[in-house]
Amino acid sequence: MRLTALAASLVLAAAPLLRADEGMWTFDNVPVKAIQAKYGVALDAAWLKNLQLATLRFPNGTGAFVSRDGLVITNHHVGRDAIAQVSSAKADFVRDGFTAATREQEIKVPGLELMLLVSSEDVTARVNAAVKPGMADKDALTARRNALAELRKAEEAKTGLTCEPVTLYQGGEYWLYRYRKFKDVRLAAAPEVQVASFGGDPDNYTYPRWNLDFALFRVYEDGKPYRPEAFLPFTQTPLKAGDLTVISGHPGVTYRGQTLAQMQYAKEVGIPFQLAYLARQRRALEAYAKVSPEAARVAADAIYSISNGQKRVTGQLMGLSKPESLALVASREADLRGTVARNAGLAATAGASWDRIAEAVARQKALLKEYTCLGTRGSALFGHALTLVRILEEEAKPTAQRLPEYSEGSLKATRERLLNPRPVQMGLDEARLGWALREALEQLGADHPFVKAALGGRTPEAVAQAACAGTRLQDPAFRKQLLEGGREALAAHKDPMLALARVLDPFQRGLQRQWEDQVQSVFAEHGGRIARARFQSYGKSQYPDATFTLRLSWGPVATYDTGSGTKAQPFTTFLGLYDRHTGWGGNAAAAEDGAFTLPERWLQAKGRLALETPFNFAYGCDTVGGNSGSPVVNAKGEFVGINFDSVLEGQGGYYVYDAATKRAVAADARAILESLRKVMNAGHLADEAIGK
Amino acid sequence: MRLTALAASLVLAAAPLLRADEGMWTFDNVPVKAIQAKYGVALDAAWLKNLQLATLRFPNGTGAFVSRDGLVITNHHVGRDAIAQVSSAKADFVRDGFTAATREQEIKVPGLELMLLVSSEDVTARVNAAVKPGMADKDALTARRNALAELRKAEEAKTGLTCEPVTLYQGGEYWLYRYRKFKDVRLAAAPEVQVASFGGDPDNYTYPRWNLDFALFRVYEDGKPYRPEAFLPFTQTPLKAGDLTVISGHPGVTYRGQTLAQMQYAKEVGIPFQLAYLARQRRALEAYAKVSPEAARVAADAIYSISNGQKRVTGQLMGLSKPESLALVASREADLRGTVARNAGLAATAGASWDRIAEAVARQKALLKEYTCLGTRGSALFGHALTLVRILEEEAKPTAQRLPEYSEGSLKATRERLLNPRPVQMGLDEARLGWALREALEQLGADHPFVKAALGGRTPEAVAQAACAGTRLQDPAFRKQLLEGGREALAAHKDPMLALARVLDPFQRGLQRQWEDQVQSVFAEHGGRIARARFQSYGKSQYPDATFTLRLSWGPVATYDTGSGTKAQPFTTFLGLYDRHTGWGGNAAAAEDGAFTLPERWLQAKGRLALETPFNFAYGCDTVGGNSGSPVVNAKGEFVGINFDSVLEGQGGYYVYDAATKRAVAADARAILESLRKVMNAGHLADEAIGK
Repeated sequence: MRLTALAASLVLAAAPLLRADEGMWTFDNVPVKAIQAKYGVALDAAWLKNLQLATLRFPNGTGAFVSRDGLVITNHHVGRDAIAQVSSAKADFVRDGFTAATREQEIKVPGLELMLLVSSEDVTARVNAAVKPGMADKDALTARRNALAELRKAEEAKTGLTCEPVTLYQGGEYWLYRYRKFKDVRLAAAPEVQVASFGGDPDNYTYPRWNLDFALFRVYEDGKPYRPEAFLPFTQTPLKAGDLTVISGHPGVTYRGQTLAQMQYAKEVGIPFQLAYLARQRRALEAYAKVSPEAARVAADAIYSISNGQKRVTGQLMGLSKPESLALVASREADLRGTVARNAGLAATAGASWDRIAEAVARQKALLKEYTCLGTRGSALFGHALTLVRILEEEAKPTAQRLPEYSEGSLKATRERLLNPRPVQMGLDEARLGWALREALEQLGADHPFVKAALGGRTPEAVAQAACAGTRLQDPAFRKQLLEGGREALAAHKDPMLALARVLDPFQRGLQRQWEDQVQSVFAEHGGRIARARFQSYGKSQYPDATFTLRLSWGPVATYDTGSGTKAQPFTTFLGLYDRHTGWGGNAAAAEDGAFTLPERWLQAKGRLALETPFNFAYGCDTVGGNSGSPVVNAKGEFVGINFDSVLEGQGGYYVYDAATKRAVAADARAILESLRKVMNAGHLADEAIGK
Repeated sequence: MRLTALAASLVLAAAPLLRADEGMWTFDNVPVKAIQAKYGVALDAAWLKNLQLATLRFPNGTGAFVSRDGLVITNHHVGRDAIAQVSSAKADFVRDGFTAATREQEIKVPGLELMLLVSSEDVTARVNAAVKPGMADKDALTARRNALAELRKAEEAKTGLTCEPVTLYQGGEYWLYRYRKFKDVRLAAAPEVQVASFGGDPDNYTYPRWNLDFALFRVYEDGKPYRPEAFLPFTQTPLKAGDLTVISGHPGVTYRGQTLAQMQYAKEVGIPFQLAYLARQRRALEAYAKVSPEAARVAADAIYSISNGQKRVTGQLMGLSKPESLALVASREADLRGTVARNAGLAATAGASWDRIAEAVARQKALLKEYTCLGTRGSALFGHALTLVRILEEEAKPTAQRLPEYSEGSLKATRERLLNPRPVQMGLDEARLGWALREALEQLGADHPFVKAALGGRTPEAVAQAACAGTRLQDPAFRKQLLEGGREALAAHKDPMLALARVLDPFQRGLQRQWEDQVQSVFAEHGGRIARARFQSYGKSQYPDATFTLRLSWGPVATYDTGSGTKAQPFTTFLGLYDRHTGWGGNAAAAEDGAFTLPERWLQAKGRLALETPFNFAYGCDTVGGNSGSPVVNAKGEFVGINFDSVLEGQGGYYVYDAATKRAVAADARAILESLRKVMNAGHLADEAIGK
């Protein structure tokens, strides 16, 4: 699959042009020449290696070393669970913020592990060798999965490092990524959540913005601050509009390699369906929230999460609905199909793949409603029950025959989820299960076999109530006991949630199998064939879709046209934070559920702060979810800000990149330093961050 | 046409419900009960009379008395021409602002006249009496026009006041409005245009906003400050979110009484055509602006004006494109058509009117392109030439046979326009004429008779160049001389622009006649019939479309969902002004053609200003263009701010009101006072405004 330099240079000429600053590139394939041509900045191998070795993966985002003593910065919203974990009833660090006055006061976060990508290896040839000629699509998919799992196992045994198989370019490349894992991570400082996420749900996905969305941790080894091989000191060079910024991080998922048929499906079927589904789910949760103040408190996070999803997919739909978006996809696809058709070898493997995918899209459309309604999503208790019903049985099978989440590669995470001691919110969980069952009743009808089996003539709410009232699955010790008690004891246990899961399991399992065999495996196999054809045609002038693995993007600090009709200012300042707070009526008004209130010490600090200090900025790096906490660096590789969001207008970038609207949003390094010094009593950490 | 109270109460029950806070109501018909029911505020006759007698009409907007000594407030952008007029090469008050330290220093604005609506009279019955049974639509239209003109003449002779005929409800009512005219108006104070219109073109039609868009004038009579019968003192009660605001002013035009067919035309044909036309015009002007720095300076206003139009009609299209908008229009129309069909008398007069209008819409669609391209819009020189070619000939005809702009009622304004000494920008004028002719060539084709006659085989640019190079019509004295020289001399004169106008006049005249007879007169006659049917069905529970006559609207200070995905804060503050200035890089960066720069004294004043002072606010009053400079008052009738804009998201309100998006934007009285005292050295005017 590797191309010679000559072949590559020949084919690159034919590759469709990417848009300016487009792409989330792997560190082995950063288009440094394009960057140099546009910005006059040469990013050499040492520069890139330094950024790579300073970037950390959090369980749900990104972070970076910013001092020689292992100080780590990430978003407050990435570190929030950890901050909550080390809080107590007496000391709520999420609400009130935290500053360790000395290193001794830094608080270890049990279980928090950070990953650093040390090296990586292309294993494409070895994985593809596992696929035998004439294999069915789903067997080929399984063969590749198993080959990757075997390679990983061998590699971990050999190196002692944590290895992860990575599929790039929809199967165009397979890699093994080797990580160093840090297990002693301590909280050093964090502002109040109300400042970190000022503006709350209304301002989410928007700009201008005033979020001090950062938290500082420190990595320890052997009880001492860790000395990282690389780190990104806070810059002393003022960032300004037009400056080049570079970002490293772990974008979660994009769909840019999808075919036109898949994107048309997303635009016309998938996303509209999802929006309607989310709206119904939200109404159910809002109804539950009205039950009591406690219910409202518990439901708030779930409602925020739905609102977040609604905004994201609304933005995706806005992007897909611009006529030029799918026109571009169609034209790129026509180019590639033409190239494939003119090459007998490519035509034999990939010539039919677009049609195969289009057929799978038709099946996806037919299955969508059932697949969604049979999922009983959202109830943690039911999820635990289903895992218990399945896990021991699945473990007993050869890995190739298991459901995906019980395969060699996934089993460990599945067990960890089952035994995770995070408390279950019983009332909310019951409401969610009841809603999921009602959704099945109303969308599929009372005569659907799943609905008949699930309800047995009762109301969805009664079924949920009975299962939740009688279960003990909220107790992690009980779940552990069941897991360790063996298949027979588990199968005989009369816990009502287990009983419900046993009834629903065959339906869900059957549908999941259909979804896998008829839809997902076709997408994987033929998406991979198309990706490999794209490789042979264009080489690595393209970048792979996001996979929550390390990537690099770049772009300028820049304005853009907002959906409200004006242009966004490249930077915001502390002045605007107080403007928006005051304009909403201040703390007394507590407008929009208090989204625009400020902690008292921030009001008192106003006179001390240099109010013109830049607070957030908008910049043209190509990011998606997972880039949260990504360090933003300048041409010198110094830390200028921390990425925390991207704007609604650019969410179409999940499918099609558009330079005009793709803007990420970062908290400026200067605002972080000013806040550490003037509000958070953390001048020592500010000094450390600038290398003093 | 007047309904008895009993009849009104009967029919009102059947009237379609208006939306909350909808409407621009005439002062004789303010729905005080609805306002009281929603806000608990009773606006009695004295309250309303006070607001009416304090409100002034500027030539291009609204203003209000705010002190017992005749101090008048309006928008800076309404008073800008006047401020420019009293400026000189040495003293540019538009750029640098102005404050009269004493009344002696107040500067008289020659020619500026303000109008105050003293009283009004319903003359519907007398106007309708002029229409004889069986008259053709266009004859009925002429008969009504003439009757109104006669009534006006008689009334002016009788009262000595300035009288204007007013057509309300598309001909449902005819009124005579009696105005007192103030002719001695002096400039008292104005901030710099850069503060008045901070954010320029980008921020136009948007919010949050930071525009100190006010100017102060003073009315004099007999050389002394005029003592108005009513005025609106600046309030001492802090305005807050949710408070009732009331606005009086002169909304220019709305289309809410149009039929469904007319609105569908606007959505599908008229506005898309207009947007394409504006885009082409803009490109032509932008090309001209590249010729030289002087050309760029001269073209800037014209480009701003096009941009303003693009934003407004884009907003209108956004509103019309919401499915619920036309669904509401359709449902209201179906209601009324049903009512009309069930009443033999109504059915006889108005039953066929919707179909007649739909037929006229079809003709409008067929004529649109020719009508637009034959207009040779935008060239002042060609406009003067066409007026000269027509005026003496038209004056000689009976008024009923003249083109509308030469009828009794319009002739004076047409002569004033012709003799107005405003200088012509020769290069820009030639570019505009050349573009208009090119537009005709490209849209209608080289074989169109108009194009053949206009170009005679030359290029549009050559024709424009020849006409502009040889004309003397830029000289107002020459125009006066031609006008006064009699028909024969004028007809014989060889000025090349006159010659061009003589060639094009027959085409334009013919098309204008078609447009009048086949489209406009049908809209007027059958729109009037529908409006009268609506009256007989629903009474005055409805409000008339805007006509640049005095109206009242109301609504709360309130947030709204902006198109960028978040909620707007009800108020902005000085903090945000400096935030947006700084965030764009300050004066040094001069980003976006300097739209976000601030005059030096505003930067120096930052330390003195109470930065939390409210600056602008968003509120739910129903406004359109013409409401610029409208006073915004609180429940006590005190001045709380001055209206200067409304947001893009609500521009659909030209056609269909939507409470969720209809937001006007005002400069807060507190920002005006703070600026007068701390920046503009005008503490004495601030004291006067609060009645000290």
